[in-house]
Amino acid sequence: MTSSVTSARLRTLFRPRSVALVGASDKSHFSATACRNLVEFGFGDHTHLVNRRGVEVHGRPSVASCADIGEEVDVAFLMVPQSGMLDAMSDAAAAGIRNAVILSAGYSEAGAAGRAAQDELVAHAEELGMLLLGPNHLGFANFVDRVPVTSIPGLRPDPGPIALLSQSGASSSAMMEFAAMSGNALSYLVTLGNEAMITAGHVLDFLVEDEATRAIAVYMESVRRPEVFRRAALRATAAGKAVVVLKAGSSELAARTAAAHTGALVGDDRVVDAVFRQCGVIRVDSIEDMLITAGLTAHTGPLGEPEAGIGVVSISGGACGIIADRAADAGMPLPDLRPDTERALAAIMPPYGTVQNPLDLTGAAVIDPSLFPKSITAMADDPGVGAVVVVSGMPAFGEGPWTGQPYLDSVGEGAALASCPVIPVSQILQPLTDYGRGALRHANLSYVLPGLKPAATALAGLTRWSRAHHRLADGTGRTAPGPAAVPVPARAERRGTWSEYAARRLLQDAGVPLVPGVLATSAGEAAEAAAGFGGPVALKVVSPGIAHKSDIGGVRLGVSGADAVRTAYEAVRAGADRVPGAAVEGVLVSPMRTGGTELLVGVVHDDQWGPVLAVGLGGVFTEVLDDAALALLPVTPAHARELLLGLRGAPLLQGARGNAPVDLDAVADAVARIGDLALAVAEDLESLEVNPLWVAGATVEALDALVTWRSS
Amino acid sequence: MTSSVTSARLRTLFRPRSVALVGASDKSHFSATACRNLVEFGFGDHTHLVNRRGVEVHGRPSVASCADIGEEVDVAFLMVPQSGMLDAMSDAAAAGIRNAVILSAGYSEAGAAGRAAQDELVAHAEELGMLLLGPNHLGFANFVDRVPVTSIPGLRPDPGPIALLSQSGASSSAMMEFAAMSGNALSYLVTLGNEAMITAGHVLDFLVEDEATRAIAVYMESVRRPEVFRRAALRATAAGKAVVVLKAGSSELAARTAAAHTGALVGDDRVVDAVFRQCGVIRVDSIEDMLITAGLTAHTGPLGEPEAGIGVVSISGGACGIIADRAADAGMPLPDLRPDTERALAAIMPPYGTVQNPLDLTGAAVIDPSLFPKSITAMADDPGVGAVVVVSGMPAFGEGPWTGQPYLDSVGEGAALASCPVIPVSQILQPLTDYGRGALRHANLSYVLPGLKPAATALAGLTRWSRAHHRLADGTGRTAPGPAAVPVPARAERRGTWSEYAARRLLQDAGVPLVPGVLATSAGEAAEAAAGFGGPVALKVVSPGIAHKSDIGGVRLGVSGADAVRTAYEAVRAGADRVPGAAVEGVLVSPMRTGGTELLVGVVHDDQWGPVLAVGLGGVFTEVLDDAALALLPVTPAHARELLLGLRGAPLLQGARGNAPVDLDAVADAVARIGDLALAVAEDLESLEVNPLWVAGATVEALDALVTWRSS
Repeated sequence: MTSSVTSARLRTLFRPRSVALVGASDKSHFSATACRNLVEFGFGDHTHLVNRRGVEVHGRPSVASCADIGEEVDVAFLMVPQSGMLDAMSDAAAAGIRNAVILSAGYSEAGAAGRAAQDELVAHAEELGMLLLGPNHLGFANFVDRVPVTSIPGLRPDPGPIALLSQSGASSSAMMEFAAMSGNALSYLVTLGNEAMITAGHVLDFLVEDEATRAIAVYMESVRRPEVFRRAALRATAAGKAVVVLKAGSSELAARTAAAHTGALVGDDRVVDAVFRQCGVIRVDSIEDMLITAGLTAHTGPLGEPEAGIGVVSISGGACGIIADRAADAGMPLPDLRPDTERALAAIMPPYGTVQNPLDLTGAAVIDPSLFPKSITAMADDPGVGAVVVVSGMPAFGEGPWTGQPYLDSVGEGAALASCPVIPVSQILQPLTDYGRGALRHANLSYVLPGLKPAATALAGLTRWSRAHHRLADGTGRTAPGPAAVPVPARAERRGTWSEYAARRLLQDAGVPLVPGVLATSAGEAAEAAAGFGGPVALKVVSPGIAHKSDIGGVRLGVSGADAVRTAYEAVRAGADRVPGAAVEGVLVSPMRTGGTELLVGVVHDDQWGPVLAVGLGGVFTEVLDDAALALLPVTPAHARELLLGLRGAPLLQGARGNAPVDLDAVADAVARIGDLALAVAEDLESLEVNPLWVAGATVEALDALVTWRSS
Repeated sequence: MTSSVTSARLRTLFRPRSVALVGASDKSHFSATACRNLVEFGFGDHTHLVNRRGVEVHGRPSVASCADIGEEVDVAFLMVPQSGMLDAMSDAAAAGIRNAVILSAGYSEAGAAGRAAQDELVAHAEELGMLLLGPNHLGFANFVDRVPVTSIPGLRPDPGPIALLSQSGASSSAMMEFAAMSGNALSYLVTLGNEAMITAGHVLDFLVEDEATRAIAVYMESVRRPEVFRRAALRATAAGKAVVVLKAGSSELAARTAAAHTGALVGDDRVVDAVFRQCGVIRVDSIEDMLITAGLTAHTGPLGEPEAGIGVVSISGGACGIIADRAADAGMPLPDLRPDTERALAAIMPPYGTVQNPLDLTGAAVIDPSLFPKSITAMADDPGVGAVVVVSGMPAFGEGPWTGQPYLDSVGEGAALASCPVIPVSQILQPLTDYGRGALRHANLSYVLPGLKPAATALAGLTRWSRAHHRLADGTGRTAPGPAAVPVPARAERRGTWSEYAARRLLQDAGVPLVPGVLATSAGEAAEAAAGFGGPVALKVVSPGIAHKSDIGGVRLGVSGADAVRTAYEAVRAGADRVPGAAVEGVLVSPMRTGGTELLVGVVHDDQWGPVLAVGLGGVFTEVLDDAALALLPVTPAHARELLLGLRGAPLLQGARGNAPVDLDAVADAVARIGDLALAVAEDLESLEVNPLWVAGATVEALDALVTWRSS
């Protein structure tokens, strides 16, 4: 029944024509605040109070039952104690109310009994055909239509383009305050509480189509209904509405209980990071950055060119230095200027100035403020520049008289003429006061990005998100060739742990390149195979019952010469023969590989997100440095290539330490094929690990593999 | 003569009894602002205007020459054009004025002619016995004695405990605004400009003894007079006054031109980082963090226990999650609570609450605000907790009436009872308004740390600085055993590049453990030496004229057996014989070392800071990951140990990947000895590199070394 949470239904919840406050009482601070909010927003005529005794509440009449309201009501805000909640919902439903906003606490956040009560709550809502927001939250406010259904005090009525969703009710006031302080107004504030039925993903999906909302800021501690969230985030990014998420829990590096190395690499929070990146979600690490970044993306929308960077103009050399440092830290691209741009700037700059990005206009701009529009337009015309930011003294925080803001007008002049967005940046994170708004208005500007470090963070997010937007909006998003193309084993066979030999067949069928191997069933065959390869070989026993061959002496490496191969053959067989009930199919003989680089490619089933691909370099990179890149499947070769290049050890693949550079396309292709294979069998797969995937120049070979299925 | 910049002299500059504005003019905005500042601060009676024509300026009389003032004047603020500057200085000096504050620009920042003009300026000042602040700056303000000698408008008169020094005049207004906004008032604002004579270090040194100053915030782009700065910073840290520095330039990873690997590792900015760490300087990366961190340390002083961490109490679970994440990022220690503390907290927390750090008081604290003082005092009594921060809703930014701040009073109650500092933290970076100040006052609190992420950054800085303070104040600072103890070569011998053999002798004399080596002068001696070692050996030609032995075939590795050793001996000699004029002393025969871990230990002469030690792991760690730790010499074994443990690759030394853990004390001792040796010859040393320093279990051996002297 939770499938009934559609955007059309949410519209009746978030844009109601009338509201009933159920459990309204003068004794309740929550009730009083909710009522005052509605009245102050001019929604009093569509607000109905329901009190069991039908007495006057908050100086207004009340009715004893929703049935007595006598008007169609869209939303019941339920502030009744848990003991009366189910009856109150029934009463509301009987009156035709189809949306319940449940403030009360004591549900899933409160132990086993609370979880049972929440299950009952949801079951009851489904039975009544009601949608349920909460419980254990503070309601929501629609600032566009001026309908606050919330007990949060101090709402600011001016609507804006940012929707703010928060799993924390207690912190949402502070977030709203910061939005107001930084000049960012809200379209909606939705506190999510326990998300018993309506989750962040559902609200996000609704907001993609909401005209007033141009960016969505989300505070969350966990992602409930991950697939709903992921799809909604992809839609939002494609639609040009940035989703900016502050998710707590990055420090909980709870290790997974998984036998495979890959499992140990996949910390939950890093999977979330990978998913967010793939969806174009901008992840931030503070309330301030969340709202500033959402405000910036709402203001600019996605940059016109996917690969564009940021041009910086300033009158302070100090500010240029700070923003360049923070840009490097945050990953905000500061492109070199093209020769044309350099020529244009050289023509206007004083002789002692330096033409570069960031551009310090020097004191010359004090004497000739026309340097601002001239340099801004020249920067904006550079094909590598997607937005120009101008660090300029903003009117100070405080109350003094406006002593004039000579440069801001010149910035505005530049913005009006420029061929891309122009964004004023203040040197410190300061409130946008009425006074500051006045100065902006005078300059025909409407927005300022506050503080050099927050600006660099927000601009880095903007450029990353713009790239994701273009990738997803173009329809050239990452889609794999379709798992159907991969031959897979029958479902009945997918059990337990597969031997290397069985895993090899699986990989081979999927087109993953393998080191050559011959299954020898006699010492003579083994020696013949070794002779055929020429050079030292590895011998590994093949037995479906033996997953960890090394432990029983079933592996010999670097064996040279026919006699030695024969001896090794007998030795590994003898090892296997000591394992009771192990049926030995033979011994796999493969050439030894030395030199080159070893990668680890694994796919692990994540309970929340499904199959997750992990790729890393072997040796110290995985064992000491924890250097791995993660992605949800499917992963195209192009995406696999990006993952490889994002590794800290990537220089080793590109020729560092005297290695020959590897054929990255070939590696990326093998990684993508491993991913496709895993996706084709995802419903049964626990983990698939190729370790190592050996790479030397253009040669890519899986040297060993292990497959574990979820059913034993 | 710059040695005349003493704190006693600076006192007459920064705490003047009277000021002359030289070049005062109604036409100058700078002059008008400076005069207005002095009058507004009540210093008008001690302000004298000097104008060549002696006309009325700024509505006040002026004199034509300093000699006409007729009163003793301590400071001349010189706003005259460059062409008249020297004469104006002479005029001031003739009147007995001994301090010049020079606003005018066009000096070292303006090319070669400007640099020459600045040299002339300094020479003139020295001749006149004058101290010189600037040029190319905006003056200074002493808020304690209410003497603003500056053209910066909008000064806030209330004095506070933070001195702000800035190399950027243009950005100092914004910095001052942020200080005021965040509730941090200033003792001094000093803009430094070109630092022709008085540098940040000199001012810092003066401020160590200034009673009103309890923390010093510094914005700088380069460290001029590094040794002055370093000594002053050490003094400040030892005195319990934090030095918080925002230094631009971290992204300028300008590679050095140095042949040795170590040289390539020593980027300037990383040396600055290392020096700052050693001096206890807190480095930050934004204006906001600079002032917030300075404010925090000024408020708390150093924490009582060097190893203490931070206890967190909050009413919002969301805030607990955010601060825990940011604490992990910033390195703010969140210690586990001791059993006693846990028991005390368990006794007061509701049953559904979780006793941990950070502590979420849950909604129970709404019903019973006494949970605040109870939990605060319990946390404060934990020996691992040096300060308790309490995340609490602060009165919102904005103008509305104060609707009450019930929890803040309870926090204040806890603060009054607690055995360590208690710091309220607001959830967002918001201005401290008069309204907020009122709420704090009502709670008997005087300070609030704004924003969860800035708070974590500032608290991390506070704990690091407190450790440095205790280390330096205890007199147990890191001092080496004294370079005199190391036998060193005569200065005449210190030239060119030394062969491995010569470098070995140097290391041996300094007590650095070496791999055994025998200098063979015949094939027979080589074979005998090899037999003595047993196992494969390395043969390297020894010739003072040949630094890069490998290039001329002068090295053979892994040679086994007497015949092979003899052949190798002849081969490496033959290689050397082909080098014209190379006098061959013999061939060094050493046992091969395999397994273990290879370190790189080098010392490079840094033009700014002197000899800098770099230590790192070999292989991918230096070549791909750039993983090295730097420190100024001397370095004690204990410090060397810290450097080693700070490497990303440190787990390899501690037993990762199946390695036997190494004897860290032995390694640290060898590193410290290398440092002592370098320090003993620092005046002539270009670089000393031990690469590799081989480590296996308790065995530490220098396998190869290269010494380069500065004179060729």
